[in-house]
Amino acid sequence: MTHPSNRSFGSIAAHVSQDRLAQRLADMAKIGATEKGGVNRQALSREDGLARALLTSWATARGFAVSTDGIGNLYVRREGSDPTLPPVMTGSHLDSQPTGGRYDGVYGVLAGFEVLEALEDAGAVTRHPVEVVAWTNEEGSRFQPYCMGSALFAGKMDLEMVLACTDAKGVSVRDALAETLSLAPEMQVRDFGSPAAAYVEAHIEQGPRLEAEGKTIGVVQGIQGSRWFQVEVTGQEAHAGTTPHGARKDAFQTALKMVNALNDLMHDPDDIIRCTFGRFEVLPGSPNTVPGKVIFTIDFRHPDAELVKERGDKVAPLIQSLAAPCEVVVKETSTTAPVDFDPAVVDAVREAAEGLGYANRDMPSGANHDAKFMAPRCPTGMIFIPCKDGISHNELEYASPEHCHAGAAVLAETLARLAG
Amino acid sequence: MTHPSNRSFGSIAAHVSQDRLAQRLADMAKIGATEKGGVNRQALSREDGLARALLTSWATARGFAVSTDGIGNLYVRREGSDPTLPPVMTGSHLDSQPTGGRYDGVYGVLAGFEVLEALEDAGAVTRHPVEVVAWTNEEGSRFQPYCMGSALFAGKMDLEMVLACTDAKGVSVRDALAETLSLAPEMQVRDFGSPAAAYVEAHIEQGPRLEAEGKTIGVVQGIQGSRWFQVEVTGQEAHAGTTPHGARKDAFQTALKMVNALNDLMHDPDDIIRCTFGRFEVLPGSPNTVPGKVIFTIDFRHPDAELVKERGDKVAPLIQSLAAPCEVVVKETSTTAPVDFDPAVVDAVREAAEGLGYANRDMPSGANHDAKFMAPRCPTGMIFIPCKDGISHNELEYASPEHCHAGAAVLAETLARLAG
Repeated sequence: MTHPSNRSFGSIAAHVSQDRLAQRLADMAKIGATEKGGVNRQALSREDGLARALLTSWATARGFAVSTDGIGNLYVRREGSDPTLPPVMTGSHLDSQPTGGRYDGVYGVLAGFEVLEALEDAGAVTRHPVEVVAWTNEEGSRFQPYCMGSALFAGKMDLEMVLACTDAKGVSVRDALAETLSLAPEMQVRDFGSPAAAYVEAHIEQGPRLEAEGKTIGVVQGIQGSRWFQVEVTGQEAHAGTTPHGARKDAFQTALKMVNALNDLMHDPDDIIRCTFGRFEVLPGSPNTVPGKVIFTIDFRHPDAELVKERGDKVAPLIQSLAAPCEVVVKETSTTAPVDFDPAVVDAVREAAEGLGYANRDMPSGANHDAKFMAPRCPTGMIFIPCKDGISHNELEYASPEHCHAGAAVLAETLARLAG
Repeated sequence: MTHPSNRSFGSIAAHVSQDRLAQRLADMAKIGATEKGGVNRQALSREDGLARALLTSWATARGFAVSTDGIGNLYVRREGSDPTLPPVMTGSHLDSQPTGGRYDGVYGVLAGFEVLEALEDAGAVTRHPVEVVAWTNEEGSRFQPYCMGSALFAGKMDLEMVLACTDAKGVSVRDALAETLSLAPEMQVRDFGSPAAAYVEAHIEQGPRLEAEGKTIGVVQGIQGSRWFQVEVTGQEAHAGTTPHGARKDAFQTALKMVNALNDLMHDPDDIIRCTFGRFEVLPGSPNTVPGKVIFTIDFRHPDAELVKERGDKVAPLIQSLAAPCEVVVKETSTTAPVDFDPAVVDAVREAAEGLGYANRDMPSGANHDAKFMAPRCPTGMIFIPCKDGISHNELEYASPEHCHAGAAVLAETLARLAG
């Protein structure tokens, strides 16, 4: 997969322009801009269509070929010297959360596009083509499931099922997609699942670790596994003034015992386990009524498959053992095995960061990304850059121009090496 | 206040009719009857008006005088032999919760009315008049504040302020009251705060203690004090997959620490302290977002004023000490001092129960009642009877005819003694 290049290391990175990338990020941030400085550019919205049109215009201005597929993934291709070789791919997504930031997703697309421009500016010839892809609907905030584009590309979803999905207003993916595609010029349509030599995705970390440790580049080793549970505790409503505690079936106090025990189970001195109780609904929610019902969720993640299984398998029995005097139902609502990225790609990312002199660290990705679906399809890796205070999915999301540039430079050297 | 009677003990109780009382309870339960066997007879509704009309018709059929006042409290009076003496009063309320039961409130009114009939049937002459009162809007479910009728009678509220209060649909107490009163015949209107020799209220326990201990009568010594708090914990929303626990400001986990500490503070081996977390709202409530805000309530009650002060004063400082890394605001939203009933009335109730051979126990009232407002006005007491499984404010509320009869018999002997 890796082909020693006859170019000298750093020659492509030298053509990566901090100002050009910052300007493109600023231009994209105008599409769906919110008052608080973020963006609302949900999947297959008019804003999404305008962002695609803008990227297409930049691509054609530089002479790169654009194409799409049945779900609207947008591919920008710079040809290689060997027409028999599959492309080395990079990219991410243009869609955002409803109150999203200016970097989540779009940074990976524009860093990839910056690499295409740097290759062009350097007059570099690669053996493999290099392709930038903007995957459709990574966020899943308007249409579920998330990561539609990359999952369809990887053969993990059924197109007809996906096209029939509707948003909260009843609009189907099929109709929204037609509307969105009408905003960009017509282009060649290709099949899903064309061969790929490798896939490297650049993204903001969406967590605080790089910033806290003063590192510029995260060398992502994989995406942690997750198990989601929903727990429903049923007790009995009672008068808060008259009912002795010994006679109560207090769903809140019972759920509290469960959460305390789960905190103990998930305690990790190394702070790698993530265990979050994001939803915790107490009913009927009246100050002077003993709660009769609690519904809560557990989001448990870890990069190690064995730990995910071992610790996760203890969740339901532990909860069951603490149910009295209430009743409890525990459902596992989602299970995702950890994904390990390809060691050669991970090494290529690390060596590019080292070679360019950027402080870096190996780390897992805490969040899901399109790279998760690409990993079983071809050698895959990711590059993280820091974001301010670890804040993401938020209009305050911020990554500095210097960090954006560093990530694109590392991506450039990585892709140049992989593309030969 | 107490006047030794020349009647023999039990002679009035002997005329209390279990069947007549059960029939009247069943008749009242038809007004606002719900499918599940409860009642919806909210304050100043058409159903409330019809219930008042029915009671009025029963009263006039027996020759008792009826009157009302500026808030629609309904008084039924059996005259005494000494026109200079104020009445001994009894009663409760006819209004219910929206999904209320067949006993909460109405039992106390009809047990009082049964005593008037028993006195009449016995041909008894009392020195004091005996009055049954149906207080307006005890529940406070449609119009706040609760206990409007008794609070106005006791001089604890302002009539104009109360009449201007509106329900969720914008209907004022003034308009609803006029509509309600139009359903019963016109009657004499009296001033608030006329003198009262004593007040004794019969009520279902609304808790499980009497049933659990096999007691028929609760000799109520007072109403416990309460302090209500609202706590708002503010952290920071973060991605559940990417944010290490050490970097989180998890409002849920912080609130959890607070509740654990409050449970320890309020732990009571005697199970007299009541401490309830009825509302516990976690925002934004998304499974994969670290909660940024929690709002929860504390309902703390105890019969002893010193303990209410001592323990309650520790609540806010304890919460504040556990706020890091979040921020917290603690507000005390309501404070009610415990009410001690008059020892002579409490003794009269106990002696009546003993004399009639009913298993009984002294106990505080966990809930608030109209008796709370009467206690500072005149010697006051309450009589509790068991209710099935302690369930109240619920369509399943149930008190047996035998227990209803026992409570009315104890009330009869108590009132006869107090009325001389």
